[in-house]
Amino acid sequence: MPTSEDFTVKTLGECRFPSPLNFPEELYVSEHTRIRFAAEIPNEIGSDEELAFEKAGPRKNIFFDPNETKAAIVTCGGISPGLNDVIRSIVMQMYYKYGVKNLLGIRFGYKGLNPANWLEPIKLTPNDVERIHELGGTVLGSSRGHEAPEVMVDTLEKLHINVLFCIGGDGTLRGADVIWQEVERRGLPISIIGIPKTIDNDIGYVAKTFGFDTAVAEARHALQCAHVEAKGAQNGIGLVKVMGRDSGFIAAHATLANLDVNFTLIPEVAFDLHGKGGFLDALEQRIRKRHHAVIIVAEGAGQEFFQEDARKDASGNILHNDIGILLRDEIQTYFKTKNIPITLKYIDPSYIIRSVAANASDSIFCAHLGRYAVHAAMAGRTDMLVGRWHDEFTHVPIPITVSTRKKISTSSALWLSVLESTGQPVSLKSVGC
Amino acid sequence: MPTSEDFTVKTLGECRFPSPLNFPEELYVSEHTRIRFAAEIPNEIGSDEELAFEKAGPRKNIFFDPNETKAAIVTCGGISPGLNDVIRSIVMQMYYKYGVKNLLGIRFGYKGLNPANWLEPIKLTPNDVERIHELGGTVLGSSRGHEAPEVMVDTLEKLHINVLFCIGGDGTLRGADVIWQEVERRGLPISIIGIPKTIDNDIGYVAKTFGFDTAVAEARHALQCAHVEAKGAQNGIGLVKVMGRDSGFIAAHATLANLDVNFTLIPEVAFDLHGKGGFLDALEQRIRKRHHAVIIVAEGAGQEFFQEDARKDASGNILHNDIGILLRDEIQTYFKTKNIPITLKYIDPSYIIRSVAANASDSIFCAHLGRYAVHAAMAGRTDMLVGRWHDEFTHVPIPITVSTRKKISTSSALWLSVLESTGQPVSLKSVGC
Amino acid sequence: MPTSEDFTVKTLGECRFPSPLNFPEELYVSEHTRIRFAAEIPNEIGSDEELAFEKAGPRKNIFFDPNETKAAIVTCGGISPGLNDVIRSIVMQMYYKYGVKNLLGIRFGYKGLNPANWLEPIKLTPNDVERIHELGGTVLGSSRGHEAPEVMVDTLEKLHINVLFCIGGDGTLRGADVIWQEVERRGLPISIIGIPKTIDNDIGYVAKTFGFDTAVAEARHALQCAHVEAKGAQNGIGLVKVMGRDSGFIAAHATLANLDVNFTLIPEVAFDLHGKGGFLDALEQRIRKRHHAVIIVAEGAGQEFFQEDARKDASGNILHNDIGILLRDEIQTYFKTKNIPITLKYIDPSYIIRSVAANASDSIFCAHLGRYAVHAAMAGRTDMLVGRWHDEFTHVPIPITVSTRKKISTSSALWLSVLESTGQPVSLKSVGC
Amino acid sequence: MPTSEDFTVKTLGECRFPSPLNFPEELYVSEHTRIRFAAEIPNEIGSDEELAFEKAGPRKNIFFDPNETKAAIVTCGGISPGLNDVIRSIVMQMYYKYGVKNLLGIRFGYKGLNPANWLEPIKLTPNDVERIHELGGTVLGSSRGHEAPEVMVDTLEKLHINVLFCIGGDGTLRGADVIWQEVERRGLPISIIGIPKTIDNDIGYVAKTFGFDTAVAEARHALQCAHVEAKGAQNGIGLVKVMGRDSGFIAAHATLANLDVNFTLIPEVAFDLHGKGGFLDALEQRIRKRHHAVIIVAEGAGQEFFQEDARKDASGNILHNDIGILLRDEIQTYFKTKNIPITLKYIDPSYIIRSVAANASDSIFCAHLGRYAVHAAMAGRTDMLVGRWHDEFTHVPIPITVSTRKKISTSSALWLSVLESTGQPVSLKSVGC
Repeated sequence: MPTSEDFTVKTLGECRFPSPLNFPEELYVSEHTRIRFAAEIPNEIGSDEELAFEKAGPRKNIFFDPNETKAAIVTCGGISPGLNDVIRSIVMQMYYKYGVKNLLGIRFGYKGLNPANWLEPIKLTPNDVERIHELGGTVLGSSRGHEAPEVMVDTLEKLHINVLFCIGGDGTLRGADVIWQEVERRGLPISIIGIPKTIDNDIGYVAKTFGFDTAVAEARHALQCAHVEAKGAQNGIGLVKVMGRDSGFIAAHATLANLDVNFTLIPEVAFDLHGKGGFLDALEQRIRKRHHAVIIVAEGAGQEFFQEDARKDASGNILHNDIGILLRDEIQTYFKTKNIPITLKYIDPSYIIRSVAANASDSIFCAHLGRYAVHAAMAGRTDMLVGRWHDEFTHVPIPITVSTRKKISTSSALWLSVLESTGQPVSLKSVGC
Repeated sequence: MPTSEDFTVKTLGECRFPSPLNFPEELYVSEHTRIRFAAEIPNEIGSDEELAFEKAGPRKNIFFDPNETKAAIVTCGGISPGLNDVIRSIVMQMYYKYGVKNLLGIRFGYKGLNPANWLEPIKLTPNDVERIHELGGTVLGSSRGHEAPEVMVDTLEKLHINVLFCIGGDGTLRGADVIWQEVERRGLPISIIGIPKTIDNDIGYVAKTFGFDTAVAEARHALQCAHVEAKGAQNGIGLVKVMGRDSGFIAAHATLANLDVNFTLIPEVAFDLHGKGGFLDALEQRIRKRHHAVIIVAEGAGQEFFQEDARKDASGNILHNDIGILLRDEIQTYFKTKNIPITLKYIDPSYIIRSVAANASDSIFCAHLGRYAVHAAMAGRTDMLVGRWHDEFTHVPIPITVSTRKKISTSSALWLSVLESTGQPVSLKSVGC
Repeated sequence: MPTSEDFTVKTLGECRFPSPLNFPEELYVSEHTRIRFAAEIPNEIGSDEELAFEKAGPRKNIFFDPNETKAAIVTCGGISPGLNDVIRSIVMQMYYKYGVKNLLGIRFGYKGLNPANWLEPIKLTPNDVERIHELGGTVLGSSRGHEAPEVMVDTLEKLHINVLFCIGGDGTLRGADVIWQEVERRGLPISIIGIPKTIDNDIGYVAKTFGFDTAVAEARHALQCAHVEAKGAQNGIGLVKVMGRDSGFIAAHATLANLDVNFTLIPEVAFDLHGKGGFLDALEQRIRKRHHAVIIVAEGAGQEFFQEDARKDASGNILHNDIGILLRDEIQTYFKTKNIPITLKYIDPSYIIRSVAANASDSIFCAHLGRYAVHAAMAGRTDMLVGRWHDEFTHVPIPITVSTRKKISTSSALWLSVLESTGQPVSLKSVGC
Repeated sequence: MPTSEDFTVKTLGECRFPSPLNFPEELYVSEHTRIRFAAEIPNEIGSDEELAFEKAGPRKNIFFDPNETKAAIVTCGGISPGLNDVIRSIVMQMYYKYGVKNLLGIRFGYKGLNPANWLEPIKLTPNDVERIHELGGTVLGSSRGHEAPEVMVDTLEKLHINVLFCIGGDGTLRGADVIWQEVERRGLPISIIGIPKTIDNDIGYVAKTFGFDTAVAEARHALQCAHVEAKGAQNGIGLVKVMGRDSGFIAAHATLANLDVNFTLIPEVAFDLHGKGGFLDALEQRIRKRHHAVIIVAEGAGQEFFQEDARKDASGNILHNDIGILLRDEIQTYFKTKNIPITLKYIDPSYIIRSVAANASDSIFCAHLGRYAVHAAMAGRTDMLVGRWHDEFTHVPIPITVSTRKKISTSSALWLSVLESTGQPVSLKSVGC
């Protein structure tokens, strides 16, 4: 075992010069800040005060009798790379490791738990799922929206399901929580286990969700195309819209992976379109100076523009819920007014990003998530999801995870890196008029 | 802020059944094990006893006067995806953020620090490095081996270099340590900062090294090809050799990413070729049952076979340092002896794996490494490298990091996942006979 | 040399059964139809009546004195994969093979030939173009539209340019022809050589244009994503719009490369939206039967809908020039009216398709085009383009090539293959109402 | 219809300068050489003397009664991208278009036609083959070598097979011819139809075989890696071996697609290793001048070295059948002797190249081949293969096609382009010494 001494870093001497970086104060790291070596809190020490997650993994004793267990899997919400990897992993782990052979796939999300929708669950065997990880999407189908919890729990009872794996995002997890409450009300021994799926990577208390890594890679490709388009014309502008309803993680990471982006617009950072110092003004400066520009915008950015005034409604409601279309039109109009000819190419690669198969990194991650979900279920855990924290897999109660959304802090190293990479002004709010 | 209560997971009841998994004891997770929420140890609490890394990041005050600073970058050892990303990031950060404009690239590794080799350093400006991240390899060139530290430090002095960034693996970092010792002996204020580069991901006290993610993705592709070849012939065998001199991380992760592998052979797990229960016997069982097989072997696996006896030396020394070739020949011979016709396809994708450009994830990671290396150098740190731990960037003294190698523990969840995925016997050591 | 005897195919006997294929009459091949072995008409035989192209290639004697020659390259219109490959090839061939070292790149299309636009041409050397084939787009920049031929020829004269290579589509080639007419009027010995660039592959008398092969590959990828989206939801519909203003070659080939498409809509085949047997009716049948559908539409398809009536103008002019948006909206409305819930995902990958670098096949093709263009120019050819016919490179006068557009014949084997692959009705015109 | 006039190219005037290209005489194109517009010979004109292929396509009347027809497919030899596409296409066309529902897949090549090998044929339905085009390799399995024709025809008779589709290369087609001879001897109405499969693209009288386009793309990728490796070290050498037993088409096209290759070695062009002007001497010049080099060698190149003398046998027989290994060792030895340190990386990507799924272009091509093979079979053709000539599909008697091999002529434009691109000496034969 190493000692603290081993971890002590040598320095050449006193730091006498003020840093030329003009970073916000909170971004400087104190000379004494350290990162714990051990992620795990040892059992013997009863440090109950320290905030910590239950560690995921196989338990020596389990709650369910494998011979009496029947499990079902449901996938909800938009598709995301890796869904089939998770399904495959759950089936393989249940079947071969725990000997649970009664496995069902619920069709098209929570809809499939309501008999009124005529969507018979399908049996899942290792043979059925062996090659599905090579495909994008979900072989079970998906849907948005909920069914009445009473109806869904009736179905669980009728089908003798003991374990329900809910793969989905914020809404799906809320749904799982509601199902659990009905299960609890009835006093049933049914385990409800979530596997968080959000391509946006914005689930609270979970460091990383599956599909995000693949999505960033695909978004980078779209940015490369936008850059080629922008450079191919005089005053060329490439504008790319990516996923990110409430947080800009994909936009920010794709920016860092591509390095040609000049403006990154995310939901967490409000900006003005018009006025001196606003986005359009900054874009004009860029175009005048370099004659091309690349912009990435998360779908949730600038939502405040849609309630503003009637002028914008003129071009139709449909357009106006889409920040990509709004920016495209506003940029066109602005430069037309200024009499500066531009060539703008707008790229919306969302469905291409999310429908590819998982990349290698996500495939591995998904297989682990499936395994840990099975361990948790068999050990009788419920109303929880499998998370990731400090490179370890964790159990996280669903209520705490849906109580908040992970967002990019403007004083984080991540956002600072984005500002560095783009060279965009710290603020795109207009100053005066 | 959440409370411990929020993190408490619900359970359905007592776990009364023994787990049917026959895992080694140490793999079961106790019911009480938890993962810390906070990676960082707060400054105010002087918990000096806890083992922890110095946190990387910008300091408010710095050691070097940017106007007087001259930095150099050297890349050593085998190429790895992301080298150019790191070079680019260091140059951009130094130039634009710290205002250090005197930047040199040392040519072809430590060789370039010995004037006897006639390899003039090249000037590096943002313009020179702007697009290099799109290329594999290193624009500076690389080499293996060392030069005398006295000669190298003479060169540093002569060129007035204050900061030397050494990008390389174990050997390179040992070299950096030796350079530092000479610098220290002379009492020079020169910072020696390492950026760990090992495609094998086996550097001690560093959770992840750059290029690994890309390498696993490429290795997965080779496995897909091996699987197609194996299925294309009766008794088809696909054999893939990947990097991994001392540890099998690439082989293990590629196995998990591909899921068609039947045997994963790594340096950490000794195996027998011959005898009942040995590798060839197990392979025969597989071939008899399923008529095809996929094998992945890390280059460092089975090195014990090369000292064994003279019989193997007959076919030449060069062949016999290569476990891939040895396995290929042994398998061919074995099945010939057994009179079982097989079709074996041997794939050695090493140079294809390591020479591609970094994927999106590695690109982002490399850019961060470069930034943190610059922060560390400017703050006067030395004889350290930039590491990654619990999703944070850290400072790690070089001596502790080169004192050990990260290896796959056979009782780790990683190895267990590999066994599960391949279905290979826990041990491939022969029993008796 | 083989003889006719060698080429005679054996048959088992008389064909007594009528074919069960219900193909249009003209698609059946007569028993006696043959394909010529020799593409080339031998010199000695003066078969002047046979229609034939001048063969491209190096001539033993050339028109221009290399020492006195100065050449310029201009790229116009939308970008297409391979533009940089062609530029590179011209420069390399001119410089190294013909010893012509005075080479200019005209910036941003024909605009760069008008001094009023302040776009100084750039010098092009082998060193400048060595790696540009790895990038999408054009390093020279491009633009649409023309400048006055007098002004452009003034510029050619002022810059002492003897050869102008015009890389572009229909409009560009018309422009080249107009430039030539002005050159001819002035009696100048300036060669105007076109290299046809149309990602749509619709240039007359040219079998294949560069970028098309790459575009089809990218479009296939978008279709794969659309299929995943369609299968991921109950009554899921994936709708993809691709390039093809006047012809549906990309749509047709992408359909054949993907094989999951159910409807291929192209400019050459008119269809109705409404009414029994129209597109929406056929789509409804498909959805009712299979619960998912994939549609590809070329941008030039269904243009007749845009003049139809005022109802459509309500949602704005911009929308209504876009068949993809129109179809998206019409499908949504139709199924809403029918009270059939659908999930439609609309993908417009155009800018992602056209901005990638050329694939291997296109790279080779572009390099050849560049070489043959140089041979033609040096041999004093003018007002012509380099074409491809029967696997040979040809010289084609620009006037004949711009006089027509290649289109898909509905009685061609290509369209028949599309119908077979999609299973769509031969006609999507409504019958009655 | 255009006229000859329309096809006449304008020239600026007389070609008075001799071309500075020092091409072999036969490469210059005469001023009068032309390429025929029409590939097809019109039926009405009985120009029997002109050499021509029978045109492929559906016939109005067919030989076989679909209700009585049973067809089988066999895949032989090494795998190639597109095999599954062809299988899929035959099944779909037979089943849906001709209504032939009795379709069998022969397992593991001709072996599967000998009952002694216990390889029961499998039934093939549209459902079985629907998604197989997404996979590399062949779902039927393959093998090399023949079975006795009597035994195979016995099997055809016993299984009541009327049509046998043989997908394979030169050896497979010879086998098909032998099967046909036995069928003919017995006077059976069984159609034997070949679909030529050679990744090397060297089948006589066939312009293009499937898989070649994909293979070139993959080989280009390997060359890019070799180039990165070569540039990454001082005196770095990247050596890539590709397929090409008798002809160098893959090596030549990959060279043209990559443009970084310095030496292309193919079976058609003999070279010396040693002596002034030989390969090693030329390589040394390159290394001394540029300090890195990329070499591609076709597997069939330099086979003359293996019979030469005993000296080479010293390092073992296995090594010496492999030109890649021989070159690797000879280069190492040569530079060691010369005391020039080099870093050589040897890449053999063959199994990675041939096992990928078909790219878009090959997928389309394979689907067409399958369709035309079915048309030919149903029309009672036999002992022929489906070829491609002047962008048309053709019927080619197997005897003529196996009587010769397509090879690269050193006086072809293709080889000249390779010489231009590599800059290698026209001859690598040693002079004197």
